Parts: sequence; C-alpha cells; structure tokens
Amino acid sequence: MTTTRRLRGIYCPNVVPLDASGEIDESELRRYVGWLIDRGIHGLYPNGSTGEFTRFTAGERRRIIEIVVDETAGRVPVLAGAAEANTRETLAACEYYAKIGADAVAIVSPFYYKLSPEGVWAYFDEIGRNTPIDVTLYNIPMFASPIDLDTARRLAGQHARIVAIKDSSGDLPFMRSMLEAIRPERPDFSFLTGWDSCLLDMLELGCDGGTNATSGVVPELTRRLFELAETGRVDEARGLQESIARLFDALFGAADFPEGFRMGVGLRGIPVGAGRTPRSARDRAGDADTLERLRALLDAEELR
Amino acid sequence: MTTTRRLRGIYCPNVVPLDASGEIDESELRRYVGWLIDRGIHGLYPNGSTGEFTRFTAGERRRIIEIVVDETAGRVPVLAGAAEANTRETLAACEYYAKIGADAVAIVSPFYYKLSPEGVWAYFDEIGRNTPIDVTLYNIPMFASPIDLDTARRLAGQHARIVAIKDSSGDLPFMRSMLEAIRPERPDFSFLTGWDSCLLDMLELGCDGGTNATSGVVPELTRRLFELAETGRVDEARGLQESIARLFDALFGAADFPEGFRMGVGLRGIPVGAGRTPRSARDRAGDADTLERLRALLDAEELR
Amino acid sequence: MTTTRRLRGIYCPNVVPLDASGEIDESELRRYVGWLIDRGIHGLYPNGSTGEFTRFTAGERRRIIEIVVDETAGRVPVLAGAAEANTRETLAACEYYAKIGADAVAIVSPFYYKLSPEGVWAYFDEIGRNTPIDVTLYNIPMFASPIDLDTARRLAGQHARIVAIKDSSGDLPFMRSMLEAIRPERPDFSFLTGWDSCLLDMLELGCDGGTNATSGVVPELTRRLFELAETGRVDEARGLQESIARLFDALFGAADFPEGFRMGVGLRGIPVGAGRTPRSARDRAGDADTLERLRALLDAEELR
Amino acid sequence: MTTTRRLRGIYCPNVVPLDASGEIDESELRRYVGWLIDRGIHGLYPNGSTGEFTRFTAGERRRIIEIVVDETAGRVPVLAGAAEANTRETLAACEYYAKIGADAVAIVSPFYYKLSPEGVWAYFDEIGRNTPIDVTLYNIPMFASPIDLDTARRLAGQHARIVAIKDSSGDLPFMRSMLEAIRPERPDFSFLTGWDSCLLDMLELGCDGGTNATSGVVPELTRRLFELAETGRVDEARGLQESIARLFDALFGAADFPEGFRMGVGLRGIPVGAGRTPRSARDRAGDADTLERLRALLDAEELR
Repeated sequence: MTTTRRLRGIYCPNVVPLDASGEIDESELRRYVGWLIDRGIHGLYPNGSTGEFTRFTAGERRRIIEIVVDETAGRVPVLAGAAEANTRETLAACEYYAKIGADAVAIVSPFYYKLSPEGVWAYFDEIGRNTPIDVTLYNIPMFASPIDLDTARRLAGQHARIVAIKDSSGDLPFMRSMLEAIRPERPDFSFLTGWDSCLLDMLELGCDGGTNATSGVVPELTRRLFELAETGRVDEARGLQESIARLFDALFGAADFPEGFRMGVGLRGIPVGAGRTPRSARDRAGDADTLERLRALLDAEELR
Repeated sequence: MTTTRRLRGIYCPNVVPLDASGEIDESELRRYVGWLIDRGIHGLYPNGSTGEFTRFTAGERRRIIEIVVDETAGRVPVLAGAAEANTRETLAACEYYAKIGADAVAIVSPFYYKLSPEGVWAYFDEIGRNTPIDVTLYNIPMFASPIDLDTARRLAGQHARIVAIKDSSGDLPFMRSMLEAIRPERPDFSFLTGWDSCLLDMLELGCDGGTNATSGVVPELTRRLFELAETGRVDEARGLQESIARLFDALFGAADFPEGFRMGVGLRGIPVGAGRTPRSARDRAGDADTLERLRALLDAEELR
Repeated sequence: MTTTRRLRGIYCPNVVPLDASGEIDESELRRYVGWLIDRGIHGLYPNGSTGEFTRFTAGERRRIIEIVVDETAGRVPVLAGAAEANTRETLAACEYYAKIGADAVAIVSPFYYKLSPEGVWAYFDEIGRNTPIDVTLYNIPMFASPIDLDTARRLAGQHARIVAIKDSSGDLPFMRSMLEAIRPERPDFSFLTGWDSCLLDMLELGCDGGTNATSGVVPELTRRLFELAETGRVDEARGLQESIARLFDALFGAADFPEGFRMGVGLRGIPVGAGRTPRSARDRAGDADTLERLRALLDAEELR
Repeated sequence: MTTTRRLRGIYCPNVVPLDASGEIDESELRRYVGWLIDRGIHGLYPNGSTGEFTRFTAGERRRIIEIVVDETAGRVPVLAGAAEANTRETLAACEYYAKIGADAVAIVSPFYYKLSPEGVWAYFDEIGRNTPIDVTLYNIPMFASPIDLDTARRLAGQHARIVAIKDSSGDLPFMRSMLEAIRPERPDFSFLTGWDSCLLDMLELGCDGGTNATSGVVPELTRRLFELAETGRVDEARGLQESIARLFDALFGAADFPEGFRMGVGLRGIPVGAGRTPRSARDRAGDADTLERLRALLDAEELR
C-alpha cells in the first residue's frame, strides 16, 4: 500500500463562479476557495458534478484545477475531478494533476452509454494500472453507469492506486456492504458519501467523510457535523443533520441541479454569475421566491 | 421557412475506424465513407451515438466531420453531430460545420444531468436563435434528457432553423403524436427514427427516414427497405424489416453498445480497430462465437 | 392443435357499471354489453385491467363473467379475465368459466411481487398443463411481471391450450420479435395488442386484433379501424387511428387509470356510477372541464 | 389521540406454513407463532408481503389472522395485514380484525394500478375516516403505489386512527424527512422500517421498530439488535447489524421473494411446505446449494 492515511473529512465539490461573459471568474473562484478554507472545509473537490465538469471544455477543466491547486497552496488537500472523454485522455489528466500538485483524483464511472459491470471494471482497471496519482472511484447511478459491489471489491483488491470510493446513491445498505467487503482487505481504502441528507448516518456507519454539495454553501455546518460525529456527540449531530438535510432538499429542489447550489453560494456573498445552461423566463419567474426561501433557511442557521 | 425540402432517407451514423494506436484512421474512414455511398446510403451522420462522439475530444470530433464532409464531396448530404459541452461550444461547432459545408447538424438533448422539460427547451431555444445551420433535435431518452411532445412542438413552432427531430425511443405512438402535432404547422419539418427494428413501421406512419446503426453494416438493406416503403411494396418490405430487426438485435446484444456495430462493420471488410472503451478478457472471451454468429446472419442476407 | 381459428378482432375490455351503493349494476351492465355488440364489437373481455378486476372480490369477478356470458348469449365470443390469487384459484376460475360457456380466458402475469422470467414461466406452465379452456397470456409490464420473448416462445411451444398473447406494452419491435419467433411453429397462435395508439400499426405488422380500452367508448371506431386494416384501406385507416390515439391519450390522461374510460362510457349514455377507488375533492374539481373536453372530442367523431 | 403509546419493537411478518396439499398448516402456524414469541419477538404481523397475502383468498387471509390472534393470546400485540380489493372490503376486514382482538392493522398502498399521490391519499383518507381500529400505512414502492412525504404528512395530520407508517424503501433520508415532518405534531405516531439491512440505522434515526422479514428466521438476532440499540450499546449493535444484513441479502437473493425466507424458516426447524407460486425444475436445481449456504450462515450465528 502506498497510502498510509485514508482520505478523511468533507471535500467541497465547489461550484465555479462565472463572469458576465460566461467565462471562469478566476478572482471570484480564488476568493471562494479561500472562503471555504477559512470556514474549515477539509479538502477541495473541483470538477465534481456540483462543479458542472461536463459543461466546461477540457481546457477549462484543467484551468479550474490549476486555479484551485494554486490558491489552496497546500492548506488542504485537493481531490481533482479527472474524467475525460476516454481512458487515454483521463490518464493524461491524471498525469497533469499529479504534476501540478493535486493530492488525488476522482473519476466518475463512464456515462452517456450505460456500460455493463464488466465494462465499468475494465475502464477503471485500465486507469488503475496506469495512473500516477491516487484514484477515487465515483459512483453516481442517477447520472452514470453504476459501480456495483463486486466491481468495487475487485478494483480495490487489484489496484493499490485506487484508494477510495465516493458514492452518491444515498443507499446506506449498499455502503454497509461495501465497507464489509473491502475494509478488511484494504484498511487504507476510504469511503466517502455524496448524499448530504444521510451524511451523519454514513459517518456513523464507518464512512471517512463526504463530498457534499451543501458544504459549498454552509461549510461551517458540514464541518461541524463531521467533528461532532468524530467526537461522538451524536445528539448534537442529529439536530445539525436535520438542518443540513432541509437545506439540501431546498437547494436540490430549487432548480435543475446544480443551479440551486449556485444560488446558495451567491446568497453567502460569492457572486457566481449565471450558470452555463440556459434557463427560460418561465423557470426564472420563480427565482425571487426561491431565493427568499433559501435566504430564510440560511438565516435560521445563524451562520457567522 | 428557409428549407423547402425535408431531410429524407437513411442517414448512416457511421462508426469511426481507429488505428493500432487508437487514433482516427483517416484512410479507412475515407474508404468506409465511399463504401457506404457506393451502397446507396442517402446521407452521412458522423458523431452520432453509434459514432461514439462522447469518446472523442472536441478536436477529434471536428476532425471527423472535416474528413467525412471532404470525402463525401457533396455526393450525399452530411448531418453533423454537433453537441459540445455547452451552448456556446455547440454553437461554435454549428458555425464551423456550416462553414466547411455540412448540410445540417444534429444535437443531442443535454445529458449527464437530467434536465426538466423547461431546461431542455431553453437549451434548444438558445441554439435555435443563434445557429447558422439547420438543426435536427436528437431525442434518445435511454441516454439523455428526454425531449417530450410539448417541447418538440414549441421548438418546431418557434425556430425555422430547427428542421427535424431524430427520435431513438422506438416509441411509435409518441412519433404519431409528434407528427400530428407538428406536421400541419411545419410541412417542412422532418421526422427520423433511430430505432432500426421499427424502421418500416415508422416510415409507414409518415416518417421521412432514419439514422440507423444497422445502415453502417448493411447499407444495401436499409436503403432497399426505404425504397420498398417509398414505392408501396409493403409485403417485400416486411420480410426485409424482419431481417434488419434480427440483425439489429444481434448487433445490439453482441457487446456494450456500440461495440457490436463496430464488429459488424469489421465483418463487412472495413478494419475498424479496437474501440476506445477497454474491454476485459472475460468480455472478449465470447467474441469468437459472437463474430461467427454475426457472420452467419450477414451471410444469410447474400449481400453483394 | 385444438384450435383451428385464431382469436381475431377487437375484444372490448368492458368497464363495470356500478349502482349508487357501489354494487355491480347488473341491468346497466347487460344494457352496455348489448350496446357494444350492436356497435359491432367482435368480442367481450370482462375482468380486464380496464374492468378493474383487482377491485372486485373473487365472487364479484365470477358474477361479472356470468352476466356477460349470459347477456352475450353466443352473439360474440367472450374472453374471460381469470387471474386469481394463485394457480389453484386461477385454475378453478378457468374451469368455472369453461363450464358456463366462456370461449377462452386471459390471465395476467403475476403481479405485486416481481417474478423472474423463470417464475413467470412456471406459473403459466402450471396453468397450461391443467386448464380446460384456451388461455391468452396477458403481458402488461407497467403493472405486472413482464412476460419476455423467450418465456412467451417456450409457453407457446409447450402448451396447445395457450393460444394467444395480449400485449399491452405498445412495443412494436417486441411484437415483431414475438410474431417471428412463434407464428411459424404455431400458426394458430393469436397476437392481440392492448395499446390503442398503435392498433393500426400492430394490425399491419400481423396482429390478429386488440383488447382496447377505447373500444368500450367508441366501439364503432375501433371496429371500423379493424375492418379498414383488414381490407387494405390503409389511408382511411390512418386518419381513424389518429382519432383513436387522440381519444386514448385524452381518456388515459383524464384521471388515474381507468377512471377516464369510465367517464367516456358515461358520456356515451351508459350510467357507470362512481368508481370503486375514492377520488378526492381536489381531483374531482377538474372533472367538469375534463368531461367537456372529452365530450368535444367525442362529438368531433360524429358517432351514430 | 386515542393511543398513548407508540407501536414499538420488531413485528414479525410471519410466513405461513402450508401442508402437502397447499392448505394453511394450522398446527405448524400455531407452533411457529409460539416459537417466535419464545424467541422474543415484540409483535406479530401476519398478512404482510413476506406472508404472501396476495396469494391467499380473502377467506384464507381472515383465517390466518384468526389463528395468529388466537395462538398469540395477548402475549404480544398483533398487527394484522388488512388490505383487500377495495376500501369497503378493506374496512370490513378492519372491523373483523378489531372484533377478534387484533391490536392494529397495516394496509398497503393500492397496487397493480399505479395511483397518483392524490389517489393514494383519497384511499387512506376514506379508511382513516371509517376504521374502528388503529391503522399503519404501509409504503413499499417496489411493489405498490408510493406514499410520498406530503401524503404521509396529510394523513397523519388528519386521522387520529392512522397511528404509524411502515416504510420498506430502505431510504434513510426519506425516513428522516417523515420523522421531521410528522413527529412534532403527532408524538404518538410510530415509524417502522421494513428494510432489514438498515434496521439499526433507522433505529438510531429515531424509528420505533421494524417489520423485518429476517425476524421470522432469526428472531433472536433482530430482537437483540433492537435491545442493543435501545440501550445505547451501538458498537455491539453494529456487528449484529452486519450479520443481519448478510442474512437478509442471502435470503432475499435465494429465490424469487419471499421464497428464500420460507427456506430460512424451514432451516430453523419449522416445516413450511412448498410455496404457493410454482417453481420450475431449473429454479429448484440450485436449491441444495442455496440451502447449504443459508445453513452455513445460520450456523455461524450460533443461535440457541
């Protein structure tokens, strides 16, 4: 095993601020990264689903990682989303992110085409054999080919460079099965959840942390939940988890994902600009009400 | 209306031959294009789902269109798959494909994220307002956000530059509803089916043609089916449709889509090389049998 | 083979009129049966999904068949829905319906529990080995365990008493595959469609008829469609199919299925009473508008 | 509120032993009930999904409740599955079960037809207004129309006689939302989980108990898990939950549900006979291996 410590804590799948012409707003992105670190986020996870990686060009995806790694400057680890069009491009991204100082990468299971479990395995097997940087498997069955239990187990058993799985299914029995199947053989393997409304339950189960969209809006709360869970203050944690679940539902339901999370970040004082996917006038008609509702939820948390 | 004639006939969603190092094999791609045209294909449709557009880089996607347009040299129309990471990139592709002489583009509905109908509409509305080239909506609900009836109707009513829909659901009642809703207002609007095992039925219903993966393997048959349907020789067409359905099922089931269609093209004498998505030894173990079975099916058709 | 003629034509899955206390309204049911036969229905299909078989007790289901068989008095064949709680009860119903003069039964695939294909096969195999009356397999994957191609083929090959399949998936390629797989071996086997908006297409494909909910509302139209298809007057048939599809969509969408079809029957002058499943005030608030819209659609057809 | 204490603990959805001719084996059912009570089950839940309620006739369903109530003789509460063909029949069952001494009923959401949320509400509203016995809503979205959050909240707020929900989705965030929405207004309302592989997590979340299929096979373990959770011995409980999850997966995967649970009960020494749904020779071919594997899992638990 090349890794002695597991990935731990809350990695923020940060949204990307855009300027008036729709370009990456580098200065706001840098400010946002600092803001997140100041509020105690344990790591950054640029180019995640919340970060709309598919809506940027390959060049922009690299630029986003460059900015985040540079701005982070080693204060917290960076888990770089590295999925590209095919294994060769993905491996090239892995190499580049290793070179510029990312700590690990996360690679979503192949999407668009629905691959069989054997095809999913072959994809990650090729990556596992060639990556120069630690890899987190990213399972998000609502958007991409599912990584099933047997595939995760095989990959964890075969590749020391595959060091974690991020699961966004919110399926607790599935996480339990993965922990039971993989942890005895790979005590260094990390389990992260991407489903915010059961973050506490997953931590109680033995997960090492999460990559949670709400952590980009209320990093104070997700971090505090993690710490309460870590120190066994479960009763306090339960109340906080309810708040986070309520926020998550509201942000998730505010608009087509992940636009609601962009709204939430904007409400915290980071101008994020209009998203990359057009929204109709009909859709935007409800925004004033939505923002008011989200603001009320945020105010109720007495942040800062 | 800027278009007076509808898109008609069978547009081949061609696979892309790759060389031993996984690069686009330009000479084989050119040879394949000629081979298809010689066998009577009505149009080319590069960068479709069968053409694995998501597994190429943005630069490679442009290169594929350049080669196909150049090799076709006006002998048949080219419908260029133009979906990119976001509306701006997609529109840039539209402009480029218009400039180099493509006849129209096809744009798949947004994928990965599942958009609401209103989000799908807004995406195509933005494209419809800015495209310099005719646009075919591409509905493939098994892989991408569905384009529903109302969305298709609104877009057809609002944008003269949106001139067709390609539907790969195989849902005949849905196609009937679209024809009924759109054709009276837009007699120039074209309806294409991407589901080969009901091609004849869709033509009988009033569709203008298809973009059918089997046409890349047996262009002689799909063309002949179209001509039989066009000339009312329905009985002959029925037998042929059964053959095509049988082939489609076999090619679709041979491996993770679209690998079976690549195998089929190889069996016709066009070396396509290994695909871009890795396949495990376990998967490949059955290939010899699969190829034999496919070969027998092709032989039974007495092609050439 | 014990059957020399295939089941043919349109079998009406009749709704069941209820009186003010929610009981079967025998006199209206008898009048409705006569009304349907007068308008040219080819057969009756009591205890289908449109007939809400699951919402009646086992005793009431028998009573419904008794009434329909008696009232029909041999004028048209009766296909009796015979699914009960388990194979023994279902077989007892088969025996009873044979005894009282039903012509055949239709048995829906097991529901509630989702059975594997092998479980579906075993269920119908047991029935096929013991039934004293011809059996129609009833495939309705939106409500019950699907009957797949291989299962249908095995059952057709093994049991002479299984003489037909009624498929309500509306999946034309699936029907094509079944026809191709079963018809050569079982020329006496009948294929019926339960999806009204592609009835013509299914007849063109080679189906023998349908069990169509709209036939309970507009028996004149479904019968005429069948006759036009039978005599090759396809152009006239197409226009009629569009009307039927429009009606089907409107009746299907009017309320939770099959309440809209009950409304439709009521609009034709058969009092059907309130359905057996309660409807909220909120739901019923739209009924006046819905009925007006349905009435307009029916009026447009100039029935009678 | 008529109820001052919430339903609590593990209610066993008992399977029904059958004799050689497929009839209810009353003496074995009585012995089984006693065996379960001796091993500490907190309550009985006859006519649940594990009890195959749909595969019995209405008369048999009543007989099963009679036997269980009689044999239990007040030692533990009986939660009687009471869903029948329609609201009137269901209410008649409620009355009968109240009369013979059941403590409460559980009523599954309407199935076969997929009802809209408003239709589901109307069904339970009718029941809530007329039932003479406490009602548990039963949500099992894999088999029946889902009961969504808003519907559960409305019903809990409107009907004092609706006192609990049993949720078999295994969706922890959904349970969290229900608890948060309903508990403040209805402190007497009980939340039970039917998904055994997250029983502990649901108890930690605040659930009152479960209706768990594994409790029919290993009542000692599910009861102990409940007690460990209740007394805050979470570490011990975690190991036990892993065992139960492993057993649940094995029993669930052994055959079409719930046959594997019947096998498990048989292995504990209660002859259950062949199930009511036929199984093919091909299916049964693996039974010897399956039984051996299940036996090994049970032996590993050192029961008794």
